[in-house]
Amino acid sequence: MAPHPLAILSEEEINLARDIVVAQHPNTVIDFREIYLQEPPKDQLLEFLAIEHAGRLSPTTPRPPRLALCQYDVIGSDRVPSYEETVVDVVAAKSVKHHVVGKEHHAALTVSEFDVLVERCFASPLFQQALAEFDLPEGFEVIIEPWPYGGLDLVEPNRRFFQGLCFAQDATKKNPDANFYSYPLPLIPVLDAHTQEIIRVDRPATGGKGDGLRDQTFKRDIIGHCKGSDYVPELLPEGTRKDLKPLNVVQPEGPSFRITNESLVEWQKWRFRVAFNPREGATIHDVWYDGRSVMHRLSISEMTVPYADPRPPFHRKQAFDFGDGGGGNMANNLSIGCDCLGVIKYFDAIITGPDGTAQKLPNAICLHEQDGGIGWKHSNWRTGRAVVTRNRELVVQFIITLANYEYVFAYKFDQSAGITVESRATGILNVVNIDAGKVSEYGNVVSGGVLAQNHQHIFCVRIDPAIDGAKNSVQVEESRPVQMNEATNPNGNFYKVNTETLERACYFDAAPELNRVVRMVNPHKINPISKKPVGYKFTPLATQRLLADPNSIQAQRAQFAQHHVWVTKHRDGELYAGGRYTLQSQKEVEGVSDAVKRGDSVNDTDVVVWSTFGITHNPRVEDWPVMPVETFQLMIRPADFFTANPSLDVPSGKNAASRVVGSSECCRNAHI
Amino acid sequence: MAPHPLAILSEEEINLARDIVVAQHPNTVIDFREIYLQEPPKDQLLEFLAIEHAGRLSPTTPRPPRLALCQYDVIGSDRVPSYEETVVDVVAAKSVKHHVVGKEHHAALTVSEFDVLVERCFASPLFQQALAEFDLPEGFEVIIEPWPYGGLDLVEPNRRFFQGLCFAQDATKKNPDANFYSYPLPLIPVLDAHTQEIIRVDRPATGGKGDGLRDQTFKRDIIGHCKGSDYVPELLPEGTRKDLKPLNVVQPEGPSFRITNESLVEWQKWRFRVAFNPREGATIHDVWYDGRSVMHRLSISEMTVPYADPRPPFHRKQAFDFGDGGGGNMANNLSIGCDCLGVIKYFDAIITGPDGTAQKLPNAICLHEQDGGIGWKHSNWRTGRAVVTRNRELVVQFIITLANYEYVFAYKFDQSAGITVESRATGILNVVNIDAGKVSEYGNVVSGGVLAQNHQHIFCVRIDPAIDGAKNSVQVEESRPVQMNEATNPNGNFYKVNTETLERACYFDAAPELNRVVRMVNPHKINPISKKPVGYKFTPLATQRLLADPNSIQAQRAQFAQHHVWVTKHRDGELYAGGRYTLQSQKEVEGVSDAVKRGDSVNDTDVVVWSTFGITHNPRVEDWPVMPVETFQLMIRPADFFTANPSLDVPSGKNAASRVVGSSECCRNAHI
Repeated sequence: MAPHPLAILSEEEINLARDIVVAQHPNTVIDFREIYLQEPPKDQLLEFLAIEHAGRLSPTTPRPPRLALCQYDVIGSDRVPSYEETVVDVVAAKSVKHHVVGKEHHAALTVSEFDVLVERCFASPLFQQALAEFDLPEGFEVIIEPWPYGGLDLVEPNRRFFQGLCFAQDATKKNPDANFYSYPLPLIPVLDAHTQEIIRVDRPATGGKGDGLRDQTFKRDIIGHCKGSDYVPELLPEGTRKDLKPLNVVQPEGPSFRITNESLVEWQKWRFRVAFNPREGATIHDVWYDGRSVMHRLSISEMTVPYADPRPPFHRKQAFDFGDGGGGNMANNLSIGCDCLGVIKYFDAIITGPDGTAQKLPNAICLHEQDGGIGWKHSNWRTGRAVVTRNRELVVQFIITLANYEYVFAYKFDQSAGITVESRATGILNVVNIDAGKVSEYGNVVSGGVLAQNHQHIFCVRIDPAIDGAKNSVQVEESRPVQMNEATNPNGNFYKVNTETLERACYFDAAPELNRVVRMVNPHKINPISKKPVGYKFTPLATQRLLADPNSIQAQRAQFAQHHVWVTKHRDGELYAGGRYTLQSQKEVEGVSDAVKRGDSVNDTDVVVWSTFGITHNPRVEDWPVMPVETFQLMIRPADFFTANPSLDVPSGKNAASRVVGSSECCRNAHI
Repeated sequence: MAPHPLAILSEEEINLARDIVVAQHPNTVIDFREIYLQEPPKDQLLEFLAIEHAGRLSPTTPRPPRLALCQYDVIGSDRVPSYEETVVDVVAAKSVKHHVVGKEHHAALTVSEFDVLVERCFASPLFQQALAEFDLPEGFEVIIEPWPYGGLDLVEPNRRFFQGLCFAQDATKKNPDANFYSYPLPLIPVLDAHTQEIIRVDRPATGGKGDGLRDQTFKRDIIGHCKGSDYVPELLPEGTRKDLKPLNVVQPEGPSFRITNESLVEWQKWRFRVAFNPREGATIHDVWYDGRSVMHRLSISEMTVPYADPRPPFHRKQAFDFGDGGGGNMANNLSIGCDCLGVIKYFDAIITGPDGTAQKLPNAICLHEQDGGIGWKHSNWRTGRAVVTRNRELVVQFIITLANYEYVFAYKFDQSAGITVESRATGILNVVNIDAGKVSEYGNVVSGGVLAQNHQHIFCVRIDPAIDGAKNSVQVEESRPVQMNEATNPNGNFYKVNTETLERACYFDAAPELNRVVRMVNPHKINPISKKPVGYKFTPLATQRLLADPNSIQAQRAQFAQHHVWVTKHRDGELYAGGRYTLQSQKEVEGVSDAVKRGDSVNDTDVVVWSTFGITHNPRVEDWPVMPVETFQLMIRPADFFTANPSLDVPSGKNAASRVVGSSECCRNAHI
């Protein structure tokens, strides 16, 4: 009755691990950060999975150890915590490893630290004094949005700071969801998290074109030129539109998927496990299609959001959303009929409270089917016979909220054996105050007195392929022009497809001008038809890389954001593109750039491929007050993995519920 | 009771125009190609539309002339046709213009010419003789797939040729839809369309790596190593998968759109007209959002598909699908519940028969709503309140079949005032015979004896913007890195957004490394919030451009495929990126490259923007026998056009028909 080695820790397991850690540190205060499954060493996991896939699991099958990774601060008498990690074997109920993380690294933030920042600000004379320089209109209240302290200006590297972005909320609206981001205040209080004191209140500039980086040009009437701009429907002056008729997704015979043992998903020849951890959110494991292994693990590894406003201290606005706060910790409780349509399976997750006890995060992941338009079609023009299939997709979705922003992440599986990793950016722009009537080269004015600063969102998807087994190679395929020549290209129409197998860990960039494609292949399995190694491929997304100067701290911290593709050899625990410890990092440590530097052989071995992409987001007025989704899709497709189109056997029958619109429903004619 | 100036010609109008042309050419044989609406001169059309939008239309409103463009061959006694065009005013019932197109140009092909090719092949001793060199298995029949003759090897430029790609069909299956493409024959008969004779049978090579471009290495048993590979469900050896449950899109209150006067669509603040012509298929006109003009005209202008196999005569495989055959002529009759789901409005189209009479093409365009996932979302983490909207889309779709290939085109309108032009490539690969056991650098072996040659599909979308009026400018926006420096970038996080307004007609390329964005703006209308000109923008798709040598005929014919963006000044009738006459063209004539060469001013005038993108398609085995869709999306979005997110007022209510899956439906637990 033991859980699957990839199953997330149960509440009981987490609480057991917590108790062991507490017992290990008597007479000390412990601030828990996370307790979650430390995935088994890959070699042991693969042994277990091989037995599982062979159908030979039994109660006596040897199992990898079931480990809880516990991350916590031990608070010393000087209030400077010691960041420590203990690995607990939850079956043996004992600590199997304990180590103290260096003081140069910081544990991820917790919401309780945010609460401290807000509370200390209001209690701080320094902050109150700064605030007193402004006249706020009657009925406005100050709101502090806690933020990580992005890397710079650290007096002592082992201090822990948080910064607050300040806004005012119109309390006369008597609605706690009135949009306070419409009223930014040019104050950035800084909390020393160890002493719990507000040590400084930074005063960012509010000027526009022509003003200097540090010019203090604001007026006392600091938000007199701002304008409320709400998004909750009850505060919209004209309400919501009335002419949208319902569109329902109905599955009268139920869904086509099957879930067993909580996390094993089977759908349309796919078979994989869904897991969840506080850092990466939903992760996908042990992916098979039609009895063949495709991927060992798929995850959103990191995302960084650097802001481009050069006026100090805005250069500190650089979030690492997964490393700083945790994509899993910030996951939304998803709602039926809002976050997806149709017949939906929700997965709960479990996160850790400040005292280390397990807390259920309900509906953290949703899974449902959707129609993806035409899958394939051919009409024989001789006979008039058309065969059309729909492209049904299975979506595993989770959504995270990081202060103002939202990200919708989805792993989409299709019937053609493709996997698409999708990211949608939405939510509210992070904005600052700008003087009345001014514009800025650092961003766009999106509402009265509100400057939305230019910034980037750069994601990294980690792909651990298992193309017919764990030992794979990576090929880079390019389509290159060839000069017209009598011998090989007499009419000039030829182009050469060049395929190179990577020997050593490396990075490279998208190259659409060469149609550069990454193929993850099994060099030992040759497609019997094409005679090429079986594989999966993707085209790296040609999006802009990190713009910050390579010598800047922003760039040093986010090496992963400077190239589109990284290829490394697998190492247990090496999961985080931007490094294990990103909060207040000064450079990327133990990130993918370090992994590449090892120079491991990546040919015919356990390779990992990392795909970086993103958006340079120079805000539009239309992104205010909530931004319509900006969508990215990384499409991973079979390439000579199969011996034919894997969706060839998808039924092409008509959907009986569709109908032609009645003319009385929609259509009238009135010629003039 | 007159039709709208943008309404497609009625059957009566077409037949009237035909009769006038016939009467104009007594005692001659006329081969009709097309009769369709010649859209009114833009200045006259704009005058009419201004009155219409002002709500002042009356029976006495002056109307632009209602013109039928008639294209036809007049067959002379030497059988060399004279390609002529007559413009008929169908209200006045008279010819208003007649001209003879030069003999260096060819009319688009017609299906009846295809029939001639097939018939003449079978009657040709030359072809029969060539065929006799092969032994076909018992019960196999020869199928000839007519193709345009792509540009080269013309003995006399005014001759008209077609080529046939040959296959064999296994008639023992007794199914006319058995996939003959599985059995390619290395014969390419060439028809002189004037004399209706097979003048030559080309013998392409069938070798692989190491064989020469012209080596004749085939065996008599030419398809002995080929294997049937069918896609019609009744011929699939294992049938279709059984575990896919229905997914229905149901709109119990009907659709949210309204159609008046056949072609005027109103939906979610959008208002536009749908039209259709034999060349471009569905076109979109006079697009407004919430009472403001956005686009004058939107269309798929051209597509070219050049093949990269250097072995003669495969260099002739270069189709211009819109110019050679006509995207409208090749449009499918769409089926309920197959080509789209939900509540669907179909538009019929009218095309022209060989005798010039109108022929109805039923269900050539479908229009329906679909759910596009989350539209925007924000959760206030302080209050736990989440507001989520869905992104409902209105899709105008048409699908064309060009011999083996299918393309699904869609114009998608969304509630955030965005327009996405989508193209999905599907259908059957164009393939050739390859000797048993060989592989090739010219393509991929996708089935026994079947080589799918490398090729490109390059599309061009024509955008005639009307951002708050017809006079617009085009800006190129780039995000450029800035070196760290004390004065403007002390911390290295700054990047500069550079915006340049184009003065003269020009071309340029996608530049993701600079985040190059094209903004179409109205320089006279300034967004009151951002103080920038109101506009719409798109990011040119960074896909590979045409690979053929610039001096090759392939490249000369397809200048439009060599750059991603072209900006020109509007001229009436200048609609075709690859030129008006593409069939057998030797170079692009009157295409977008010529329009740019005029060097017109494009600042604050009637500009047109052309977006080129495509796929370098090195086939996968998975693309056989029918290819899963490869999707491209050109997203055109408002950029400071509005004063806030235009979808802010979309209702965020729950969809009541969605439900949580029951545990008995999908889920069981059985720990081991």
